[in-house]
Amino acid sequence: MTMVLLREAVGQTLRAARTSQGRTLRDVARDARVSLGYLSEVERGQKEASSELLNAICTALGLSLSGVFSELSAELKIREGETLTVVDAA
Amino acid sequence: MTMVLLREAVGQTLRAARTSQGRTLRDVARDARVSLGYLSEVERGQKEASSELLNAICTALGLSLSGVFSELSAELKIREGETLTVVDAA
Repeated sequence: MTMVLLREAVGQTLRAARTSQGRTLRDVARDARVSLGYLSEVERGQKEASSELLNAICTALGLSLSGVFSELSAELKIREGETLTVVDAA
Repeated sequence: MTMVLLREAVGQTLRAARTSQGRTLRDVARDARVSLGYLSEVERGQKEASSELLNAICTALGLSLSGVFSELSAELKIREGETLTVVDAA
């Protein structure tokens, strides 16, 4: 089973939360005290967020870590299913 | 709100899965193709696991990433509650 990369799923969850709040990268990066480039890379799944900075980003977005991972778990389950379907069809 | 560190929660979830299977660090590290020291540090929450190596460790343990994060989310929720209780009592 090819698994989804955690940093990509985390990035998409964080980006979805930010855009649903109508906020810019600049705004959230400032609140989280991370650089705009760092946040952008995390959102695109290009950089692993450290646990400390992930907490800072979640706090800036008004999210709990458990809430993020609850959403993430549901999302991963769907994607793992899609991956399995592709494997089954091959 | 002081949040739990993700790497500590991940480490405890992975260690709990390994010990419940009665397996050694050496055994799981070999299957995951990571060093014993790396796995040990990840389990103790001292090192952030990269997404790739987290997948390898999950595969070695026969776990899906979604399963790990579902469990993790429940665990985080409990711990965030404990943290909040301490804050409320202060």
